Amino acid sequence: MPRHLTFGVILTGTGGPGEHNRWLDPEIPGDASVDLDWYTEQAQAAEAAGLDLVFIVDSQFITPDSPPHYLNRLEPLTLLSALAARTERIGLVGTATTSYNSPYNLARRFASLDLISRGRAGWNVVTSGDAGTAGNYGLDEHYDYATRYGRAAEHIEVSRALWDSYEDDAFPRDRSTGVFLDPDKLHTTDHRGEHFRVAGPLNIERSPQGQPVIFQAGDSDEGRDLGAKYADGIFTHAASIPANRAFADDIRARARAFGRNPEHVVILPGAKIIVGDSDEEARDEELAQHRLSNTFEQALGELGRPFGWHDFRQYDLDAPFPDVLVHAERSFRTQATSIVEHATREGLTLRQVVELHAAPRRSPFVGTATTVADAIEEWFRAGAADGFNIYVSKPSQFRRFIDEVLPVLRARGLARDGYTGTTLREHLGLPVPANRHTAERDTAAVAARQPASV
Amino acid sequence: MPRHLTFGVILTGTGGPGEHNRWLDPEIPGDASVDLDWYTEQAQAAEAAGLDLVFIVDSQFITPDSPPHYLNRLEPLTLLSALAARTERIGLVGTATTSYNSPYNLARRFASLDLISRGRAGWNVVTSGDAGTAGNYGLDEHYDYATRYGRAAEHIEVSRALWDSYEDDAFPRDRSTGVFLDPDKLHTTDHRGEHFRVAGPLNIERSPQGQPVIFQAGDSDEGRDLGAKYADGIFTHAASIPANRAFADDIRARARAFGRNPEHVVILPGAKIIVGDSDEEARDEELAQHRLSNTFEQALGELGRPFGWHDFRQYDLDAPFPDVLVHAERSFRTQATSIVEHATREGLTLRQVVELHAAPRRSPFVGTATTVADAIEEWFRAGAADGFNIYVSKPSQFRRFIDEVLPVLRARGLARDGYTGTTLREHLGLPVPANRHTAERDTAAVAARQPASV
Repeated sequence: MPRHLTFGVILTGTGGPGEHNRWLDPEIPGDASVDLDWYTEQAQAAEAAGLDLVFIVDSQFITPDSPPHYLNRLEPLTLLSALAARTERIGLVGTATTSYNSPYNLARRFASLDLISRGRAGWNVVTSGDAGTAGNYGLDEHYDYATRYGRAAEHIEVSRALWDSYEDDAFPRDRSTGVFLDPDKLHTTDHRGEHFRVAGPLNIERSPQGQPVIFQAGDSDEGRDLGAKYADGIFTHAASIPANRAFADDIRARARAFGRNPEHVVILPGAKIIVGDSDEEARDEELAQHRLSNTFEQALGELGRPFGWHDFRQYDLDAPFPDVLVHAERSFRTQATSIVEHATREGLTLRQVVELHAAPRRSPFVGTATTVADAIEEWFRAGAADGFNIYVSKPSQFRRFIDEVLPVLRARGLARDGYTGTTLREHLGLPVPANRHTAERDTAAVAARQPASV
Repeated sequence: MPRHLTFGVILTGTGGPGEHNRWLDPEIPGDASVDLDWYTEQAQAAEAAGLDLVFIVDSQFITPDSPPHYLNRLEPLTLLSALAARTERIGLVGTATTSYNSPYNLARRFASLDLISRGRAGWNVVTSGDAGTAGNYGLDEHYDYATRYGRAAEHIEVSRALWDSYEDDAFPRDRSTGVFLDPDKLHTTDHRGEHFRVAGPLNIERSPQGQPVIFQAGDSDEGRDLGAKYADGIFTHAASIPANRAFADDIRARARAFGRNPEHVVILPGAKIIVGDSDEEARDEELAQHRLSNTFEQALGELGRPFGWHDFRQYDLDAPFPDVLVHAERSFRTQATSIVEHATREGLTLRQVVELHAAPRRSPFVGTATTVADAIEEWFRAGAADGFNIYVSKPSQFRRFIDEVLPVLRARGLARDGYTGTTLREHLGLPVPANRHTAERDTAAVAARQPASV
């Protein structure tokens, strides 16, 4: 894997998770989350800077209290397909859930995105934490945790089998002989598993990168195993260098245990980057941005999210944090557990927990361009990150990262100076996965050429 | 509805249904069906000519004997989203099945396409005729006919309800008051039907055309009812002026019976158009193109399609046509019934049926530009068509239609001279459907202003 930093940019229109008032910033159009031209502008800026990928997150459950970007947003693959037509090199990564999609349908859509972008598609596999999503898909309640992760693993397995339906030389398209397809290079899937039955084959060929790149972000034990077993890239949060180093070591150890090359897993913490003319100016901007995030009432509402949007307004704010972990069982369980454990350990009231959640958090990546570059370099050299998934608080800050921070990292030999390949796998330094049927055939051919063992 | 011809163009890459050898034409790239640039070129040519829409068909079941375009194609909405980014005005219509999609997911994808294209999306609703598709979605066999059509109707109903989740003025996005959403203008769906349960609301606002345009192509009694009840546009085949006039009258009568304005259903037969310098040259080109369609063996295979891909190679070619209608029950039943009835009536052998199917069919729209324009005008004035969905046999023929036939129709006042609107509904002369919740509110307000009845 090339030893340079990988950079993604998370495009969230009117705001990120739980950000209710970001859109009040005059830089952010109120319709940013549904405007293809807004996304095009950011993606083209990212591409001009040689970034590796853009990342479109998702959710499918709303209430009138949801933040603006959640209330009204474009479906990720629709948006990424449009961006594929307006960009040439940058990777295109989108979130899609294995809980409420059919493998044939979703594998086909990612394969189509991969082909129209000529090898730039990536799939961030999620199991859906918002329990309410179930109601949009005919279920009374969300799948339990084991079923969610069982479906996710099987969904990825089936998708990868479908993506290998055609070997790379399946289509001679020979006008002189009239042969379009070599039928020996087309393979059915015949999957019969616990959660899915899929006959196949998929009706689409592989792209130049072989298969779409798989990303994963789960932090539970099941989530880490899923990522270590299947993912080419891991999204996580940036806690601290020691914590992220331990996370990366854990993921690589699990990957090794699954028989994988741990260097083939790219670990990307999310990073809020703010650049100022002085460190102090940048910290002031961080605070100013924070003031545009949530009111206390909004933060109280958002606290319910990991607990299946449990309504905390029913409790006494000044009583001890209520016993609500049961509501997280089919939601964001890991995050909810951490909140409850912290509250119990410190003896916090509900008000204190909300205030902690609404309190300004100091990102490690705030300061002058040099300060930010130093922090990025430190994380990278410490093995805490292979790169970062940048959260764009506002477009002007994204431009400052591109114009001021990236050149410093390039001068230090840490960041690529433009693209060296055309596919997302090439950007990430990952090999093209061999088609399983071609690999079998090659193995058999090699075996046939060996002298028989005694 | 404006009294001008509507024109769509069907883009099928390496060939249409059952066309195995079209790709041997040197004009057609062997990878046309998976090349975004090829589709872009055709769509931009259609847009430059002011055509109303491009249409992308679909299927999800293949065998090694499937025609090239079926073997390897892009998923329609992925492709249309990319084309939305490369066009400005033309309508974007794609096929999607109600048998193997969830309403929430599919409604969301069409709403996203509608929004990124600023009101140009259309959905051709199908129930999937290829019985084998079931195997890709975990079913042992395809749904029976009644279930397929029941699902289709309910799927459309739910989709339309989801598309009305937000009233058009739901988002004040008022920076001075900090109000992003007017929560009274957001509505849940709460659908509990025979086939689907969907809570809603959908997390996306309406486009400038209100809702995506609905198309339907079924020709059975159930299919005609579905189209008459829900569709804004009907795709059908071009049989003859009397047959198509009767079809159009039937659809409009059914639409009236459903309480709809029959003028709000645009009927578009598919038309193979071939233009030559003389009528004879055009007929020669038609024959030459026919020679590139199917061999006898390929036609024998294709005959199986309406019968659930039943394998006719097992029968004596010179015995009477076998009794196989049972295999069509969960497939293209109407088409299969017509084949069997014809064979029985005429006492045909299997070989004769195949030869009839493989025989050159004379399209009514072949000749000089004037001949073709005359035929189009005759069908239009006879009430047999509101326009045509043009099948592009090869790009040079599409250019001849644009450069030679369209100007004649414009000179006669039958075709639009460029676009007069920006949305697909405007192109088709269809009104924007009022949001159901706004309409209810307005009705209630009007009622409140009326003096109480005595």
